[in-house]
Amino acid sequence: MEPSQNIYDDPAFFTNYVQLPRQQKGLLGAPEWPALRAMLGSVQGKDVLDLGCGMGWVCRWARDESAKMVKGVDLSETMIAKAREFDAATEGRVAAIDYVVQDLETWMVEPEQEWDVVFSSLTLHYLYDLRRLAQEIYSSLRSGGRFVFSVEHPIYTAPKNPAFVPTPGSPDSKTWQLNAYAEEGVRLTSWLGAKGVRKYHRTMETYLSVLLETGFVLRGFREWMPEAESVGGAKGWVGERDRPMFLLVGVEKAA
Amino acid sequence: MEPSQNIYDDPAFFTNYVQLPRQQKGLLGAPEWPALRAMLGSVQGKDVLDLGCGMGWVCRWARDESAKMVKGVDLSETMIAKAREFDAATEGRVAAIDYVVQDLETWMVEPEQEWDVVFSSLTLHYLYDLRRLAQEIYSSLRSGGRFVFSVEHPIYTAPKNPAFVPTPGSPDSKTWQLNAYAEEGVRLTSWLGAKGVRKYHRTMETYLSVLLETGFVLRGFREWMPEAESVGGAKGWVGERDRPMFLLVGVEKAA
Repeated sequence: MEPSQNIYDDPAFFTNYVQLPRQQKGLLGAPEWPALRAMLGSVQGKDVLDLGCGMGWVCRWARDESAKMVKGVDLSETMIAKAREFDAATEGRVAAIDYVVQDLETWMVEPEQEWDVVFSSLTLHYLYDLRRLAQEIYSSLRSGGRFVFSVEHPIYTAPKNPAFVPTPGSPDSKTWQLNAYAEEGVRLTSWLGAKGVRKYHRTMETYLSVLLETGFVLRGFREWMPEAESVGGAKGWVGERDRPMFLLVGVEKAA
Repeated sequence: MEPSQNIYDDPAFFTNYVQLPRQQKGLLGAPEWPALRAMLGSVQGKDVLDLGCGMGWVCRWARDESAKMVKGVDLSETMIAKAREFDAATEGRVAAIDYVVQDLETWMVEPEQEWDVVFSSLTLHYLYDLRRLAQEIYSSLRSGGRFVFSVEHPIYTAPKNPAFVPTPGSPDSKTWQLNAYAEEGVRLTSWLGAKGVRKYHRTMETYLSVLLETGFVLRGFREWMPEAESVGGAKGWVGERDRPMFLLVGVEKAA
């Protein structure tokens, strides 16, 4: 296992990253959020943990919905600093959020702390050791508690050269170049000017098997794609119904 | 909904079909069988229903493992006749198998009959109405009973032109032309000389959501691909690790 990669503390990358719609607009810039929100259920009066909290959008959402306790964990000091900065600007209303800079590859549950909801948005595909983390999450959840997460979809992470090409014979439509699906492990890509961004491809079988073997019960499974009427409009979603980009999963620690 | 398609009773097609390794060798010619077998658990003393039983291989396997009662359902009279012919050749040892010619689009559970195991191999992707069938299966299972099935994988059924092409830039490897994943519904393909073979593409989200909404609990999920050392050998499995061909699912009616 290589040391955890942290591209977010690179100022050149971060300058580009904060321009993304989902960073500019928060959860409103994340089109998959309503589907994830539905999996989370009400968080009122609950203890919520956000793993890979980034700039803290979900922490603030949970606080706005009157969660009892909210904690955000992220590897990047820059992201956590930005989250704290946003919170300071909301006049103390969200002061009870606790942010911690920590690497999820080695993060361990605090023995005293139990959670009702553990959430993770677009983070787990950067981690090498999913099984260890799933076990930590399971042991930190109360009975009936939920773990809800999104990742880049295995169809999206699999290819050695992840790209659309015009469909042979019908150049108006697009085809996703899928290969290497069975070969789990590191994929190096370029993103927002950063080269060698390291992700870990896993099959859907592995995601689900790790969760089932940990003891979780599957409650929700979504392969997020935009609705047909959204494609081809201003959002530039051509091709986004040809293969799913995000996988959303909700599991429960049975009572 | 169009009338159910039955290519198996076409003599020209059937002549080709019975030449397939999995028809010639039975379960030994089905490389995904050990993974399915593991999901089924012991069937000793149990009541087993096989939906889309074809030539009856699974019925005979279950009988050999001392199932209490075995029933096979298939749309094709030719297939059922072949199954009965094989059984007659085994000297009465498997006489207690009950075969029924019936269309799974309209099949209804017999109110008096309950099952411990319902099985279906490579059949459900030919059916229009999965939800109705899942509900029938659920209501016909005893508490703690299992429904185990294989289908062509959604990555395999999605494309409008399902084919491998040489990977652009590295012609020694293959790329699966994936598109139209979000567009569920009819796909027409050619198979063994039969044109216009009708399948129904569904996403993984749909398969799992239908099962969860019916009340099932997910127990096993496999995206079957051959092991790395098998590829490139005599079996001609080049490309078969670039995308999964079969999806194997095991669910339980909770006690």
